[in-house]
Amino acid sequence: MKSSCSSFPLSALSLTLASAVLMASAAQAQTADPAAQVQRVLASPAFKSAAATLDKEHGRIVEDAIKLTEIPAPPFAEKERAEEFAKMLKAVGLSDVQIDPEGNVLGLRKGTRGDGKVVVVSAHLDTVFPAGTDVKVKRQGTKLYAPGIGDDSTSLAVLLGFVRAMKAAGVNTRDDILFVGTVGEEGPGDLRGVRYLFTKGAYKDKIKSFFSVESGDINRVTHGGVGSKRYRITFNGPGGHSYSAFGAVNPMFAQAQAAAELSRIQVPTTPKTTYSIGLIGGGTSVNSIPVSSWMEVDMRSESVDELKRVEDRLLKIVQDAADGENFARSTKDAKITVEAKLIGDRPAGSTDMNAEIVQIAKSAIEAAGYKPNFNWSSTDSNMPMNLGIPALTIGRGDVGKSGRSHSLDEWTDVEKGPMVKAMTTSLSIVLTATGME
Amino acid sequence: MKSSCSSFPLSALSLTLASAVLMASAAQAQTADPAAQVQRVLASPAFKSAAATLDKEHGRIVEDAIKLTEIPAPPFAEKERAEEFAKMLKAVGLSDVQIDPEGNVLGLRKGTRGDGKVVVVSAHLDTVFPAGTDVKVKRQGTKLYAPGIGDDSTSLAVLLGFVRAMKAAGVNTRDDILFVGTVGEEGPGDLRGVRYLFTKGAYKDKIKSFFSVESGDINRVTHGGVGSKRYRITFNGPGGHSYSAFGAVNPMFAQAQAAAELSRIQVPTTPKTTYSIGLIGGGTSVNSIPVSSWMEVDMRSESVDELKRVEDRLLKIVQDAADGENFARSTKDAKITVEAKLIGDRPAGSTDMNAEIVQIAKSAIEAAGYKPNFNWSSTDSNMPMNLGIPALTIGRGDVGKSGRSHSLDEWTDVEKGPMVKAMTTSLSIVLTATGME
Repeated sequence: MKSSCSSFPLSALSLTLASAVLMASAAQAQTADPAAQVQRVLASPAFKSAAATLDKEHGRIVEDAIKLTEIPAPPFAEKERAEEFAKMLKAVGLSDVQIDPEGNVLGLRKGTRGDGKVVVVSAHLDTVFPAGTDVKVKRQGTKLYAPGIGDDSTSLAVLLGFVRAMKAAGVNTRDDILFVGTVGEEGPGDLRGVRYLFTKGAYKDKIKSFFSVESGDINRVTHGGVGSKRYRITFNGPGGHSYSAFGAVNPMFAQAQAAAELSRIQVPTTPKTTYSIGLIGGGTSVNSIPVSSWMEVDMRSESVDELKRVEDRLLKIVQDAADGENFARSTKDAKITVEAKLIGDRPAGSTDMNAEIVQIAKSAIEAAGYKPNFNWSSTDSNMPMNLGIPALTIGRGDVGKSGRSHSLDEWTDVEKGPMVKAMTTSLSIVLTATGME
Repeated sequence: MKSSCSSFPLSALSLTLASAVLMASAAQAQTADPAAQVQRVLASPAFKSAAATLDKEHGRIVEDAIKLTEIPAPPFAEKERAEEFAKMLKAVGLSDVQIDPEGNVLGLRKGTRGDGKVVVVSAHLDTVFPAGTDVKVKRQGTKLYAPGIGDDSTSLAVLLGFVRAMKAAGVNTRDDILFVGTVGEEGPGDLRGVRYLFTKGAYKDKIKSFFSVESGDINRVTHGGVGSKRYRITFNGPGGHSYSAFGAVNPMFAQAQAAAELSRIQVPTTPKTTYSIGLIGGGTSVNSIPVSSWMEVDMRSESVDELKRVEDRLLKIVQDAADGENFARSTKDAKITVEAKLIGDRPAGSTDMNAEIVQIAKSAIEAAGYKPNFNWSSTDSNMPMNLGIPALTIGRGDVGKSGRSHSLDEWTDVEKGPMVKAMTTSLSIVLTATGME
């Protein structure tokens, strides 16, 4: 979409006169008709001005995306990128810019209501790629190739673009907006950034709603956070020579028993609940009874209760298997012991389809001519969803214009027209949800 | 033992006169009284002369041991050492010296009977150590340290010493003796050297008995060969995302079921039979259903039949487990398949305690003042034992004068007195068994 100014139905005068009435009915209006709120925002000169800035600054946003993408940000090593992003948040005029103790970058844009609450608009700093990965961006036409370019480095640049556009257009919002670059969204990070934000950070009880701007297509809205628990289960034993120590307990037999038992757990299809063993290992040679054996188990559910049921069963199974092996074979040298280490913990949760922010996102996406695609996934939004705080993970790119996320040939297409249209739609969701005035 | 000549009961004349009678009764005498045969050898001037040569050449044997140890001979890469050993066998005067197609080094010492049969006297060329291991010999007093110095490099030098001693003493034997340096005795080699010798080589149907001279103490006699079979079992499946593809067959569940079933096999304590899982692996990430999973299984038995029973059960178990998984979960994308790859096959066998060579070894060891220690193990002798050919693995070092076999700090003590005594005892076994005249 090329941004262009169309006529605006309310004059500055009528807006001033009607302001008291509009303010009073704001809460009701938002709940009653998200579509109308979206239309109001889209039709406003300020929004159009902001959209025009996004259009004008498309090149700068792409430059920022390249700059940020080329600063490596492996899990647990986001610091360099965080420092740069903090500088950039300051440069676009946010207040209270800080890197919190977990490593998240925060910057505040004050609203007009001043109720002490904030709406978080975030993107994640980290990538899945380890240190040493070549993160140099390569361009082919309008396509940019680089690890992390789509997930989620470009979103950081888009957030900066949002702030500049709002400033240039003189946009005021009812709510304070806390822009955040989070750490630890990807696998091993285990949501440590948002976990800190919601449970320990300075804003922990002040967040009224949460948006994560992610790599995905603008029509994709994640309103459900699949919960997951991951364990590394290690069975230890005395070990010994396979022939001379035969009869001694073998940790691999205990593990096999546990894994076989795990495979027999029944889970519901709704709420969707799953489990898997993804990795196993152990032993040093074929002719030795191993001293240890391990497996990594992944469990997920849309339901907190179902996830807990499977987790509890797993923990019982592995202990029973160790005990069983200790009765089946000799423990003369040592018993089998088992250690269950939690290596992943993403809480489940969801934002109701009838919630205001869901309906706002739906209306804004439809208004731009896209077909909304609601889904469940595992993102930064899991944490607020689990806490009952309205949260969505939304897109900022055109449909089908990015791919190969988590692979070395990850790409995103920055063709101006589709990208600006998608960013503008994303901004319309944020501004409607934060009560643009 | 310092070698010294004592008086010899038979004069050259009486020997000549009695030779016809002695020759005629040789077979009966040997079967009837191995102890007497040993005594006859020990008392003979030729043997004493040979023993004196071992004593005199102790330093040269140690030098050869160092030279051979310092030529790396990892499994499947024994060639350089084999070529050197072949040169050395030629240099000591053996005939028909050759490196066979498998890599074994052979050299013949003709006997007087000429029945076309041979007695093999061997040591193994290979070590357990991979390419790149520092095999430089370090000396501390009379102790030599180097990977492979004890197992079995020094034995190669001792065989050369035997040949020189026999030559110097003008020893004639009834039997042809085939001196052999074998390849592939250690783990992954899987007895490929002796397997070739007995099943494909030029002497395959001509070997009447077999001695492997090994690292162990001179009093240790291995008369039983524990058989072993080793399998790498691989389960393959379609793989998929742990959440979105949940319900698909998982090769790790099939493997777990198989391993748990394996753990329930009952085996006899006599003949001793064992099984173990020593290594497992598979998978690429905790959040993926793996495309493959594997385990390495070690099975051993003193009995060919019991070993086969466990092997057959394993092969049925893994197929049943794959089938079971294919009924328990979805095979929409692909079924679980299983592959059982034989990665180790050492045939079981034994040489009866009443066999002549066992009794000769016992008598010779006792005559030298050691206490014989008969045992079962897994050595080159497994192959002839399995074929019903009398075979023993015997020592050539003093008791307790070597250690840390298969480790980087492997050592052997070459203190002259004990080493010469042990070598002389070992030679007395060989010369008695080959009918020294």
